[in-house]
Amino acid sequence: MAWIKAPGGDDVGRLIVQKYGGTSVGDLDRIKNVAKRAIAAKKQGHRVVVVVSAMSGETNRLLKLVNGLTQRPNEREQDVVIATGEQVSIGLVAIAIDAQGGKARSFMGHQCRITTDSTFSKARIKRIDAEGIFESLDRGEIAVIAGFQGVDEDGSITTLGRGGSDTTAVAIAAAIEADACEIYTDVDGVYTTDPNIAPKAKKLDRVSYEEMLELASLGAKVLQIRSVEIAMKYRVPLWVKSSFSDDPGTLCCEEDKAMEDILVSGVALDRNEARVSVRDVPDKPGVAAQIFGALDEKAISVDLIVQNTPVKGKTDITFTIGKADVVKTTDVMKKVVKAVKSGPVEVDDQVAKVSIVGVGMRTHSGVAARMFKTLSREGVNILAISTSEIRVSCLVPADRAELAVRALHTEFGLDADSVGPRKKTKK
Amino acid sequence: MAWIKAPGGDDVGRLIVQKYGGTSVGDLDRIKNVAKRAIAAKKQGHRVVVVVSAMSGETNRLLKLVNGLTQRPNEREQDVVIATGEQVSIGLVAIAIDAQGGKARSFMGHQCRITTDSTFSKARIKRIDAEGIFESLDRGEIAVIAGFQGVDEDGSITTLGRGGSDTTAVAIAAAIEADACEIYTDVDGVYTTDPNIAPKAKKLDRVSYEEMLELASLGAKVLQIRSVEIAMKYRVPLWVKSSFSDDPGTLCCEEDKAMEDILVSGVALDRNEARVSVRDVPDKPGVAAQIFGALDEKAISVDLIVQNTPVKGKTDITFTIGKADVVKTTDVMKKVVKAVKSGPVEVDDQVAKVSIVGVGMRTHSGVAARMFKTLSREGVNILAISTSEIRVSCLVPADRAELAVRALHTEFGLDADSVGPRKKTKK
Repeated sequence: MAWIKAPGGDDVGRLIVQKYGGTSVGDLDRIKNVAKRAIAAKKQGHRVVVVVSAMSGETNRLLKLVNGLTQRPNEREQDVVIATGEQVSIGLVAIAIDAQGGKARSFMGHQCRITTDSTFSKARIKRIDAEGIFESLDRGEIAVIAGFQGVDEDGSITTLGRGGSDTTAVAIAAAIEADACEIYTDVDGVYTTDPNIAPKAKKLDRVSYEEMLELASLGAKVLQIRSVEIAMKYRVPLWVKSSFSDDPGTLCCEEDKAMEDILVSGVALDRNEARVSVRDVPDKPGVAAQIFGALDEKAISVDLIVQNTPVKGKTDITFTIGKADVVKTTDVMKKVVKAVKSGPVEVDDQVAKVSIVGVGMRTHSGVAARMFKTLSREGVNILAISTSEIRVSCLVPADRAELAVRALHTEFGLDADSVGPRKKTKK
Repeated sequence: MAWIKAPGGDDVGRLIVQKYGGTSVGDLDRIKNVAKRAIAAKKQGHRVVVVVSAMSGETNRLLKLVNGLTQRPNEREQDVVIATGEQVSIGLVAIAIDAQGGKARSFMGHQCRITTDSTFSKARIKRIDAEGIFESLDRGEIAVIAGFQGVDEDGSITTLGRGGSDTTAVAIAAAIEADACEIYTDVDGVYTTDPNIAPKAKKLDRVSYEEMLELASLGAKVLQIRSVEIAMKYRVPLWVKSSFSDDPGTLCCEEDKAMEDILVSGVALDRNEARVSVRDVPDKPGVAAQIFGALDEKAISVDLIVQNTPVKGKTDITFTIGKADVVKTTDVMKKVVKAVKSGPVEVDDQVAKVSIVGVGMRTHSGVAARMFKTLSREGVNILAISTSEIRVSCLVPADRAELAVRALHTEFGLDADSVGPRKKTKK
């Protein structure tokens, strides 16, 4: 007697978290579509938890009401207002599931005990008491959970900051030890680079947590950084998928040998930074601390920092800041220049940061050199460089940035018509 | 040495519940106005609890979303969606109070433990655990509570039905033993009749709970019936006031001697009923039960019922139903007529119910006769009559209804230019 596999083989009876973003629940037809997908997964024999964001535009509508009252709203109360966006979504999704013949039960943050600290508007999850979710699943229901919100120890509603629904989904997946966390969005996965810049950009079948973290830090808006951190910490297999197609999407997971075989998995472009250079800085202890201390005092975030080897007791310091902070930074630097007795300060907002990311860099040398050579060949001037274990970033003139992205994309074998090792891993 | 009274005399240090309806929080300027009023009461030395409704139009907007998905929404989930309307309001009101220099803390139904049964969309309050409210007041805050919503024993959100915010306010007032519950609306009190029909209608300074109950049942939209029932049961002094003026409004309270001195305190008009008459009904036991049982089975509410003394073993039965139920009722009655072997059924929706209400009727006879005489003098035909201890209602042809209201209003001394005993009680 032979065993006959159930349809889908091992792919039955799994515990799945599906997260749908604002565009995926953006109108009633899309909400019906979310219900359909959740019911389909349930019918395939899985236990399904759905996490939803507010309908697109809703959070901004609510913030506009708040800001119409005051520019400095009480943060506890702002969270009370903003959290309604996701509450409407869970109710509507549960109603849609019910109307299509499924069973559903909605949960607000306080109902499934997503306990956070009390940092209103950017709270961090401390723990999740998943008992109610399991009871719901055991009753055969699809549990529909509000993303982005939690409750603090006092019972006050908190929110997790923009993109917080991703974090909710991954944290829930970790808490219930889900077999997969599927992040549904309006793109069908993580791409090697922005397809609007490089038409030959291709979807990655797989990406490591660390690569995804670097890509998210570099402005790839597909996943919130915090959610990737949690996924990495608790080893939650994370799928990025489109709610409008059946494409399998991109799996974000632990690094393996196949991933190491390729040097670069993505090219990122960040146009949101400006370069500040301070000339002729006296090479004395404490000067850098003085400069960056002054910036920190004004809550100005500094990204890349480069300091050249001093010549004749003087050095140049270059750093990048967000473009929105240019005016504030100029003010701060006027005072700092006097205090540290340096030369003039240059500010240039016509710059962009081009980065290559790949776990292969850990085991393969020469990647940075190859990047510099490529940029040089294309006549792209490098204004500053910074690196991490799996990333090399170059600050380049803004008008050459897209050219640089395309050249690097081709150089590292990422174009859709080239076949790299990562592609081969596709089933 | 003489004691100097504090400003306002005894009117200091009271515990006040203020309830603001949808039009009173209809836009951001009005929300700022609510904050101003609450802060003013606090500065006068009172402890202040504010209960708010959803911004006007918001509940309908949410219901439209729900009904866009299905005409038979899951009721638990519908309440999850609808309850967000009041949640937005409490957050905004608390933010406005905070922005104006006051201290406030918002409470959702589950946060101040307004425990209800699980009849979603029309739940009834079982108990309120007011500890959190008192803690908030003790911290010097204005407690801002979401009207219309509660939480059941399972932790699910419930709503109390249309107008439920009045009920929340009165129930909170009862639970904390407030000195007064002020219901702010867009009219400045309870009127002797609809001023649109009788321009000489005047505001009542005081009205008894029982009169208010009758008026609310008769379609005066100023207070929800359930809220008056609770106010009566727990003897909560209930003020109806305008949030747009400083008029003292109408006090709804226990009946006293001054109230009994006048016969009629209000004239009500309800245009929402249709008359059904069944002719030649056999005078046998169980026939009425058959008719009204069949209507009840189809959830058709019957208001006024009149049965004449039988003549020759036959009688006529007349009753009124809501105009929306005319078609359903006609269908039901077709079958019933056959079953009970009665004569034909007449349905007439060109009728209106005119009622006079007053606790004075208890102690004064002849009020009903005077009403009939007045209607007769004006040539208004009476189609059916029903009475309670403090009310007489006459069904009249729709086209004579307004004339009837004006005539009764004058006859019973309610016109603004007449001075009745109730008027004299004004301070």
